Amino acid sequence: MPEDGSYCPHFHRTIEMIGRRWTGAILLTMSGGCSSFSQIRRAIPGISDRLLSERLKELEAEGVVERRVHGRSADYGLTDKGRALQPVLDAVGDYAHVWAAE
Amino acid sequence: MPEDGSYCPHFHRTIEMIGRRWTGAILLTMSGGCSSFSQIRRAIPGISDRLLSERLKELEAEGVVERRVHGRSADYGLTDKGRALQPVLDAVGDYAHVWAAE
Repeated sequence: MPEDGSYCPHFHRTIEMIGRRWTGAILLTMSGGCSSFSQIRRAIPGISDRLLSERLKELEAEGVVERRVHGRSADYGLTDKGRALQPVLDAVGDYAHVWAAE
Repeated sequence: MPEDGSYCPHFHRTIEMIGRRWTGAILLTMSGGCSSFSQIRRAIPGISDRLLSERLKELEAEGVVERRVHGRSADYGLTDKGRALQPVLDAVGDYAHVWAAE
């Protein structure tokens, strides 16, 4: 990433991945401990099964989320690449607390 | 913002604002010193005049960017609410440097 804040494709890709509709909310609930499809869906008002499923597949393809099979059921967890987003989620949360709540 | 990482509408609104297509890149170039429409456009490969104009208007409506008139010309600057996004941009940049460049 350039030091002077000029355009960087990696920055661009990252910020648009986490900001895609519902994705930030999904990552936040998962960082807070939600792991099953139904837990995540219940935690996010307004998200549909179809969109949650689509977003989880995209996050799996990005290597941020992994689907874990346990016998006949499955759940979802953050990978190392997903857990590494915690400082980003924290910075967004701190900002939102001060500025978006106005 | 809830401490446990559960859904928060302010967090949701913030992360989707900064992650909207091109918006993160625009904020990054502005935090790096770009202020005129043509500077920002030149700094971001692939953005069109129409989309840059639309995104700047949205950021003005959010109170993140202000349009400043200087005689017969104008430029753009970050407001306090926009400058407060710096820790978010830094956290995304740090993450992207390590994980998105793989």
